[in-house]
Amino acid sequence: MPDQSITQARTPGSEAREPGSGGGRGVSRRALLGTAGATGLVLGAAGGAVGYTAAPAQATPLTSVGSGRAMFHGKHQPGITEGLQARGHLAAFDLMPGAGRKEAAALLRRWSAAAERLMAGEAAPHGDTGVARDSGPSSLTVTFGFGHSFFARTGLDKQRPAALDPLPDFSADRLDKARSDGDLWVQIGADDALVAFHALRAIQKETGGAARVRWQMNGFNRSPGATAHPMTARNLMGQLDGTRNPKPAEPDFDRRIFVPGDGQPAWMAGGSYAVVRRIRMLLDDWEKLSLPAQEAVVGRRKADGAPLSGGAETTPMDLEKADAKGEYVVPLNAHARISRPDQNGGAAMLRRPFSFHDGFDADGVPDAGLLFVCWQADPLRGFVPVQRKLDRGDALSRYLRHEASGLFAVPGGAAEGEYVGQRLLEG
Amino acid sequence: MPDQSITQARTPGSEAREPGSGGGRGVSRRALLGTAGATGLVLGAAGGAVGYTAAPAQATPLTSVGSGRAMFHGKHQPGITEGLQARGHLAAFDLMPGAGRKEAAALLRRWSAAAERLMAGEAAPHGDTGVARDSGPSSLTVTFGFGHSFFARTGLDKQRPAALDPLPDFSADRLDKARSDGDLWVQIGADDALVAFHALRAIQKETGGAARVRWQMNGFNRSPGATAHPMTARNLMGQLDGTRNPKPAEPDFDRRIFVPGDGQPAWMAGGSYAVVRRIRMLLDDWEKLSLPAQEAVVGRRKADGAPLSGGAETTPMDLEKADAKGEYVVPLNAHARISRPDQNGGAAMLRRPFSFHDGFDADGVPDAGLLFVCWQADPLRGFVPVQRKLDRGDALSRYLRHEASGLFAVPGGAAEGEYVGQRLLEG
Repeated sequence: MPDQSITQARTPGSEAREPGSGGGRGVSRRALLGTAGATGLVLGAAGGAVGYTAAPAQATPLTSVGSGRAMFHGKHQPGITEGLQARGHLAAFDLMPGAGRKEAAALLRRWSAAAERLMAGEAAPHGDTGVARDSGPSSLTVTFGFGHSFFARTGLDKQRPAALDPLPDFSADRLDKARSDGDLWVQIGADDALVAFHALRAIQKETGGAARVRWQMNGFNRSPGATAHPMTARNLMGQLDGTRNPKPAEPDFDRRIFVPGDGQPAWMAGGSYAVVRRIRMLLDDWEKLSLPAQEAVVGRRKADGAPLSGGAETTPMDLEKADAKGEYVVPLNAHARISRPDQNGGAAMLRRPFSFHDGFDADGVPDAGLLFVCWQADPLRGFVPVQRKLDRGDALSRYLRHEASGLFAVPGGAAEGEYVGQRLLEG
Repeated sequence: MPDQSITQARTPGSEAREPGSGGGRGVSRRALLGTAGATGLVLGAAGGAVGYTAAPAQATPLTSVGSGRAMFHGKHQPGITEGLQARGHLAAFDLMPGAGRKEAAALLRRWSAAAERLMAGEAAPHGDTGVARDSGPSSLTVTFGFGHSFFARTGLDKQRPAALDPLPDFSADRLDKARSDGDLWVQIGADDALVAFHALRAIQKETGGAARVRWQMNGFNRSPGATAHPMTARNLMGQLDGTRNPKPAEPDFDRRIFVPGDGQPAWMAGGSYAVVRRIRMLLDDWEKLSLPAQEAVVGRRKADGAPLSGGAETTPMDLEKADAKGEYVVPLNAHARISRPDQNGGAAMLRRPFSFHDGFDADGVPDAGLLFVCWQADPLRGFVPVQRKLDRGDALSRYLRHEASGLFAVPGGAAEGEYVGQRLLEG
């Protein structure tokens, strides 16, 4: 197994909210897997102490993939800094007419309880479907966020962060409002598709009469173990994507990605803002380009992700390097040049996407692309300035179409005994 | 890694068509993986001898999942007896107006060449997209079949097998014709979603102007290594599915699944018939049932698949066993009772499905279920009698809706230097 995943591995019994900002991040999956099989089972049984029923009988022993486990409780919610997962579901829910703050609080309490159990490989609280049996948690994460419209519906307008103000319009946007926004957002990821579907269905069931699905999208990344490539994923254009992602070990990682403990609003301490975009890739057009033309659009070599200025994937890009004719080797409109943080006032976001493929349209063109999910402490210093710049001059933009959009406030992780969003809903 | 997969592992250089009916089946993935990494690379390089370009540079070493490899050449096509794959694409293509036998022959020649290369982890013949880089073959299989309409369009009516006569109507059918049938059928499966998508796109590209997509569906199974359960998969109803599947080691396996060497028509020797059904699961209704009610519908325990008459998953079902009130323990309308081969004149088919989930409909109901694919030497002795019986009395039928259907003649595997369907198209 390659060390391709960063998990929030923590020792059972450690305090619910960790003092250090790094938490358990940086612990590799390999390190985790040395003990996770046993740990998962022990916790499953011990869960009875906090009111859980016993874990479902495991007819088969857990495997390395199945026993991968992320922790529900912590300073941050899960599903942000972990490695890419093989399967993902994004879903937005709207509160039902008549449901307000009280119903929303009860819903987040139910959702949190369900997420904690599911992430431990236990049965769902109500009417477990059995779909996830035999495979353990499989690195399942469940993440909850609040959209702009949530706050008016719950009478919490004064608590709505300015960072949730609507994103500006971009010229490449062709947004389907029915697949955008929403009162509540849930991101589910796992290394097994049945485990992910099981969680999605359980989360849907826990809405009771309080909320209904507004939109729902499915995505994927490589299967665990299908590649030894250490960090970066390929997207459906064939490019390595994420080379310049901020790394948890970097000193300013937390400041860029998470709202600080003394940040505003107070209920968002330890939280992050997620920008979600369904980015359709116009693959028929893209694939007509020659390899050199594609590489000029991106600014990196397709095979290994190295900058066109030379070196390997992680070599810093030489923006000034010119060829014999005096032309920049990395073109001025190359995607990798324009999106560089140091070209955008230090703006940084953590991109953690899923690819999507929802069949072919009537013309035989794949409805495929990227479920772009990026994380930042402030969208006005992360996604917005970068996308504005890309929108004006990025050579890649003509091969992309933004079809849906959402911006969600994702509160910090729940402490033991707390539910996600409690500091907002009971603040 | 569990031994959950049966592959057609063969030694490089073995004769193209094997004398024994069993071929390499029964060789476990574990056995294969001991050497497959090296084998894949060696074959990639050696491929130049038959006109291939070299394999793409592997920036990263192949992993256990990535190096899994099925063989294109052989007595049977790949994708029939191999273990379930994590990701699958089913697609039907129609010949373009004006395209006939000659164009179809050229298409199958191009498709076969592409499939052979892709299954070896090499680049696609034309304009490789790069999406599969870094991950090897990942047990990719590509399988080709002919639908009823293919034969009239190519002037080959006299070669059309009687077994391709349209399936009878069933009362549970709500078939969407636009997502049913088709001149040509392609099944793609792999243990990595990007590898599978890459192959689908390459196969589409190789159609040139000869054919276009009629319909296309995506499915999934567990990720490799996510469960140690040896044989059977769970479906989205939470049931173990495939317990009674015929096993390659059984003496009558080949006779039931494959057209014999002296069978009719001659071009189908070594081939099989695939019945494909998009079976929507009415999960909102199903999940309202209690666990005992679900188990009575199926006739097996949900947790471990054991018959309600007792024992473990593989224990033979005691159809006569009664409870204290004299009621059959396995109800008369239980799915597992009705679908048993010995209740259907020995009818047997090899089921090798993918689950599907295409989001939620407007009412928040998941558009999810089973991409049912079953294989048999004769549909009139496999799918048809079983489905007829299920259609009349199966307790499970009320929770299912057959939304699309196809029946395809899948010729035997291509020998070295041959393409799939050559014996039909040049016969």
